[in-house]
Amino acid sequence: MREIKGNVIVGQSGGPTAVINSSLAGVYKTAKDRGAKKIYGMLHGIQGLLQERYVDLADHITNDLDIELLKRTPSSYLGSCRFKLPEISENREIYDKIFAILDKMEIEYFFYIGGNDSMDTIKKLSDYSILNGSKIRFMGVPKTIDNDLAATDHTPGYGSAAKYIGAITKEVIRDGLVYDQQNVTILEIMGRNAGWLTGAAALAKCEDCEGPDMIFLPEIPFDIDRFMQKIAEIHKKKSSVVVAVSEGVKLADGRYVCELTDGIDFVDAFGHKQLTGTARFLAEKINREVGCKTRAIEFNSLQRCASHIVSRVDITEAFQVGGAAVKAAFEGETGKMIILKRISDDPYICVTDIYDVHKVANIEKKVPREWINEEGDYVMPEFVSYIRPLIQAELTPIMTDGLPRHLYYTDKSKK
Amino acid sequence: MREIKGNVIVGQSGGPTAVINSSLAGVYKTAKDRGAKKIYGMLHGIQGLLQERYVDLADHITNDLDIELLKRTPSSYLGSCRFKLPEISENREIYDKIFAILDKMEIEYFFYIGGNDSMDTIKKLSDYSILNGSKIRFMGVPKTIDNDLAATDHTPGYGSAAKYIGAITKEVIRDGLVYDQQNVTILEIMGRNAGWLTGAAALAKCEDCEGPDMIFLPEIPFDIDRFMQKIAEIHKKKSSVVVAVSEGVKLADGRYVCELTDGIDFVDAFGHKQLTGTARFLAEKINREVGCKTRAIEFNSLQRCASHIVSRVDITEAFQVGGAAVKAAFEGETGKMIILKRISDDPYICVTDIYDVHKVANIEKKVPREWINEEGDYVMPEFVSYIRPLIQAELTPIMTDGLPRHLYYTDKSKK
Repeated sequence: MREIKGNVIVGQSGGPTAVINSSLAGVYKTAKDRGAKKIYGMLHGIQGLLQERYVDLADHITNDLDIELLKRTPSSYLGSCRFKLPEISENREIYDKIFAILDKMEIEYFFYIGGNDSMDTIKKLSDYSILNGSKIRFMGVPKTIDNDLAATDHTPGYGSAAKYIGAITKEVIRDGLVYDQQNVTILEIMGRNAGWLTGAAALAKCEDCEGPDMIFLPEIPFDIDRFMQKIAEIHKKKSSVVVAVSEGVKLADGRYVCELTDGIDFVDAFGHKQLTGTARFLAEKINREVGCKTRAIEFNSLQRCASHIVSRVDITEAFQVGGAAVKAAFEGETGKMIILKRISDDPYICVTDIYDVHKVANIEKKVPREWINEEGDYVMPEFVSYIRPLIQAELTPIMTDGLPRHLYYTDKSKK
Repeated sequence: MREIKGNVIVGQSGGPTAVINSSLAGVYKTAKDRGAKKIYGMLHGIQGLLQERYVDLADHITNDLDIELLKRTPSSYLGSCRFKLPEISENREIYDKIFAILDKMEIEYFFYIGGNDSMDTIKKLSDYSILNGSKIRFMGVPKTIDNDLAATDHTPGYGSAAKYIGAITKEVIRDGLVYDQQNVTILEIMGRNAGWLTGAAALAKCEDCEGPDMIFLPEIPFDIDRFMQKIAEIHKKKSSVVVAVSEGVKLADGRYVCELTDGIDFVDAFGHKQLTGTARFLAEKINREVGCKTRAIEFNSLQRCASHIVSRVDITEAFQVGGAAVKAAFEGETGKMIILKRISDDPYICVTDIYDVHKVANIEKKVPREWINEEGDYVMPEFVSYIRPLIQAELTPIMTDGLPRHLYYTDKSKK
């Protein structure tokens, strides 16, 4: 007999991933199966909620095929925001407003799918809730391609981004072998402060591919002179050189390599300088000083939205963390985040657990120093062993008329 | 009873495609099945042949699984070159040398997989052959992602590149919808003089996606002021704008848009100025003048090597043109190219035919004016109807340990 549960609201926040909607599907399906009355989706996260922008998800996810399509739909289905709640002591009004809206909607369970900033939101809302005797349960559902969230073995979204990076790195390496002449390809991979994604380029090193020749993570200061010297050394042995660099690599003096370009700065809507141009800067320098053919390839936004080649392990875990969050909240938990705990590497076994969100918010997890080689220009086998299970198997896209089908968001039921 | 045929040599030339090796597989398998004695592969095309660099393909393709892997391996397996043969009257010696090598190898059939320049090679070699009473048969096998080859309805390689462009354009459009703020994404797509690939971005417009907002092909002069005006007009109706531009778009005065950037010029090994920077230039201009968030996304080399999402129609046709070339040569044809003839659009029916290479070499096929809208900022439905059948269905990659497996070329049997 199914117990009737109260209303649920779920939101997505921060940068999207290829599988973030699998977590949304996990929250929705589990909440529905476990008797939730209404399941609302906030549009553009907490920022949209403050404007009372939300939808009844039952109007959008109408059958099992919709759930399958939603899992395979890249980029936050509900829209996202980058909005950090102030401290409760600084601005109590904003919290009063959020809770007034939630109370009006008769929300009992609140789920937020996101990274570090989103876990901070869960922390603050659950603190406020406890301070004010609200019965609403707040649970965090982890996601980020950056894999920089503490406490969890890895974050949903990372495995698919890593698989995409591994697959296209292999393809680009082969492409570099086509002409019988010296050439250098610089791959620019996402990761402002942590090298989790850039390290995934090492996956390309396997039986049928030599892999990249060098890999530079933002954890280690980047020495341009040494880099140029190494390019020359490698060219003595092979003509096609492929290097993976993080967009966030910095010189010893703290300047980003991409700041050395003379182009115009791109500033994003949050006032952050966009870190693009690292590959271009290095490729131009090599072209000028060495004279060989060079290419700068930015892996760009596809890293977070290439849903046409997701990892089955990743998309399944993304669904599971959504479901586990609902289960935990329905059992009374609040102020927690779902984490992934790796029980074993080989065979890969991973389970969900719950973790106090106060202990994870705002901690940025970096690649351990011992997973990077001494010279700082490649990753160690331990790092690859860590990633490898996360990219296993596929979830076939549902194709219509030659292209992957997504669940289309229409405005018709917007409230 | 299988007749014993003489020796075969096959080479690949020009830019690679995601399915160029499917044509190699088609040549190899058909030649083998039809009794060829030896099947050689020239390394790095005619340029490698001149240095007597070739392999016995039986050393590399040892079983049926190798053939399946070869079909799915991106980028020219045998390596490529960009080498245009001189006129016979200008430099007879080079022809004498090539034929001496071919005679020494006892070659009777010569296949060259490539685009316009490669068909020019076939034309010249077959002319020389006829002039000098050689019995070697020369056949061209078409390939190019650019789709700019005359006489054939389309070229193998184009369909997979178009499918990749359509799929990732859909993904990037969704990614642009994530934040609730004005933004412009400029997609830079390959095509120096012809807009076949850029037009494929229109495939993204389907039931679950609005498609790009504007598409600019190199066939039409690009008006920057009008472009900026249109961006402002579209922004009045929607916040996220996505524009596809060919890397080769030019102003009315003939300058490439990418030449307006102040960066350093990349020059490739053939002395061609690399046409990168169009998207970046436009994105920077919008960022500066409109102030909204902008992104420049170069689809880059992946357009020609994304073998992880090929079109089944395309990879099959690529195999077929290889096989048809062998069949025709074995039946006595020479100086011909295999072409694809579309019998019907719906249902899509396409057959191979043979065509005099003298009539196709060095003609660059452009997108017909009537397939571009009057204002020159989008493509007409006829264009999409032309492409749509070419992107249908998939050929599943063979995955090992989470990544697509390729046939690995090893030097061990290099001669």
